[in-house]
Amino acid sequence: MTSLPLHVRVPGLSGERITATYRIMGDAARAREVGMHISVEQTVEFPFDLLPPGDIPDHIVGRVTEILAAGELAHDVSVTYAAEIAGGDLVQLLNVVFGNVSLLPGVRLIALELPTAVSRCFRGPRFGVEGIRTRVHALHRPLLSSALKPLGLGAKELARVAGALARGGVDLIKDDQGLADQAFGRFHERVRACGAEVAEANAAAGSHALYFANVTTRADLVVPRAHEAKALGATGLLVCPALVGFDVMRALADDDELGLPVMAHPSFIGSHVAGPHSGIGHGLLFGTIQRLAGADVSVFPSFGGRFAFTRGECRDIAAACLAPLGAMRRALPAPGGGLTAQTLQAATDTYGIEAAYLVGGGLHRAGVAGRAQANLESNAEEFRRLIESASERVQPDQT
Amino acid sequence: MTSLPLHVRVPGLSGERITATYRIMGDAARAREVGMHISVEQTVEFPFDLLPPGDIPDHIVGRVTEILAAGELAHDVSVTYAAEIAGGDLVQLLNVVFGNVSLLPGVRLIALELPTAVSRCFRGPRFGVEGIRTRVHALHRPLLSSALKPLGLGAKELARVAGALARGGVDLIKDDQGLADQAFGRFHERVRACGAEVAEANAAAGSHALYFANVTTRADLVVPRAHEAKALGATGLLVCPALVGFDVMRALADDDELGLPVMAHPSFIGSHVAGPHSGIGHGLLFGTIQRLAGADVSVFPSFGGRFAFTRGECRDIAAACLAPLGAMRRALPAPGGGLTAQTLQAATDTYGIEAAYLVGGGLHRAGVAGRAQANLESNAEEFRRLIESASERVQPDQT
Repeated sequence: MTSLPLHVRVPGLSGERITATYRIMGDAARAREVGMHISVEQTVEFPFDLLPPGDIPDHIVGRVTEILAAGELAHDVSVTYAAEIAGGDLVQLLNVVFGNVSLLPGVRLIALELPTAVSRCFRGPRFGVEGIRTRVHALHRPLLSSALKPLGLGAKELARVAGALARGGVDLIKDDQGLADQAFGRFHERVRACGAEVAEANAAAGSHALYFANVTTRADLVVPRAHEAKALGATGLLVCPALVGFDVMRALADDDELGLPVMAHPSFIGSHVAGPHSGIGHGLLFGTIQRLAGADVSVFPSFGGRFAFTRGECRDIAAACLAPLGAMRRALPAPGGGLTAQTLQAATDTYGIEAAYLVGGGLHRAGVAGRAQANLESNAEEFRRLIESASERVQPDQT
Repeated sequence: MTSLPLHVRVPGLSGERITATYRIMGDAARAREVGMHISVEQTVEFPFDLLPPGDIPDHIVGRVTEILAAGELAHDVSVTYAAEIAGGDLVQLLNVVFGNVSLLPGVRLIALELPTAVSRCFRGPRFGVEGIRTRVHALHRPLLSSALKPLGLGAKELARVAGALARGGVDLIKDDQGLADQAFGRFHERVRACGAEVAEANAAAGSHALYFANVTTRADLVVPRAHEAKALGATGLLVCPALVGFDVMRALADDDELGLPVMAHPSFIGSHVAGPHSGIGHGLLFGTIQRLAGADVSVFPSFGGRFAFTRGECRDIAAACLAPLGAMRRALPAPGGGLTAQTLQAATDTYGIEAAYLVGGGLHRAGVAGRAQANLESNAEEFRRLIESASERVQPDQT
């Protein structure tokens, strides 16, 4: 006597399938074996030979549809899943394409194709590249972004930094991701002061800088804090989706009452890309998944700085931010992590004008632009000029 | 003219510090250099020489306090952070100890020590090992856990599986993490049917099985779904914290109106442990962090099964689930991922009685216990006997 039925019909299957592609270390036979294992692991997680006949083995279990060599040591294996397993839910989508796979050695999720039945459930970025450009009145030039730092400054002092950045022509001014609601620096005081200062600088200079307040916080406070940020004068939200949950960011982006641009920061996300043979591909993670999760701007550490992304990986990220994805808007790539006047040309050669260049504490350094004295406002101005002129002489890189 | 003040006093610093230990690849000089870099990166993320004098360089910037050799190729570097940077917020705690570090190659977070000022902000597991044992009336034996599968079965069919597991003596019956709210299998129908069936089996057999409903779903629905689960008869919650956000699970565990045991499932968490020289240590992630996030039961893939954790890593997980951590309760380690009658003795030698052994689809196989025919209920009974007798002849392993 078994507890399972003798035959199962699963109602409501449309036949539409999600395709996930995994780069699997090993020869074709090993790749097929791991792919078959994944197709079961990610769906029924049950001995295949014990499944009741019918729609479960025929449609619910994943299907290995393609195995292609990827260099000499790996193969790219495509597995399809019934669209209805994930529905239009980002959490369940990530669960089916990568949940337990994340625990398998030598397997990296590198691509995702969504059928219309799934992609239409995602609104994606509310503003996207064009919406952000319209907001900051910069339709045809690279954008400049910078962060409010250092942690430990009071609200008024951070607001002074914000004002100087706005006057200097920084388009996207963001809280550092370390600025939360701390005993030594309260969220509401900071956001009110910085929002007011950026608005004042915009009014005085005729500029249109946005101010992204960091609303990355405890689960029960994220949504209220985002609404509070808006009421206090923030004109954008900074979110670390790997800390709060990707779908928490999606919910903020989809919140019509908020209606604010969302900038995704990569804090805590790095493990997904740390191992070359595990985790998630750079473009898929920082481009596709961030867009599914509603990011208008996707921050990532650029090559040649203090992190380890290669130029190719960064190019993949920018491409995935900007590639067609259902009917979703494009996200603006925001390369950061140590951009300097010296590394700028290599960056603009890679990203061109379709990017928000994120410059950090280095803007406070004297002589950024050949000046003897530290002046944040003129440093920002000069940096913006440098980016604009560098992007005009872009040499599309072939490396 | 600079935009920064000439001297900064940061109010409200207690002097209490969080200690994070990183295993850093390289010799002592390199480890110190990376440690110093981390101490800045994770706090001010600002050129150290440009910081205004005062409390920011003196107290806000992290401090490298210890560098110890860890084998020939790596060093363990301890960095302390002011408690007030994180406060009692799990999101901000993870941000300060691992946010941007997650993007640094060759650095792995392996240990965390919290001062009382921080640890007392975390309630941790609501029930813990003792609370779970009391609920299932099993004070001095290993627990048995199993999942409702396969995906694609209807509510009534899954309930039949749940009933057989309960009658067979399974203590912790959980939804498979793939069971969500799908067109072919609605959450409320499943939870109502399975909750009722487990309650009925408990009443008939005098057993006390708990039923953990999977509430891993979109951000705006997690909390309502957890309350719905309780109303429908679930007696526990299954949560995948890496999918929904660790602090979302913490909020569920802390919800006094819910008051349900929480089982943490590792879907999507694997990237954090995939690379040996990056990510987060196994014990820290599956033990300490899951407890901070409120898990009463921490599921992880055991060694020797279809995943790649070593016996040592699994031992670290169990130890961290059970080690002192502030005033927090202990979490029950739940090793799974392919336990069979054949691999059971090695498992009980490692985990002893202080564990919930998670057995999956294999319980449906004929002959689990030398029987010719598949009978889920008697297979479960037999498996429970096997675990109990194996754990009585435990040979504490030395490997």
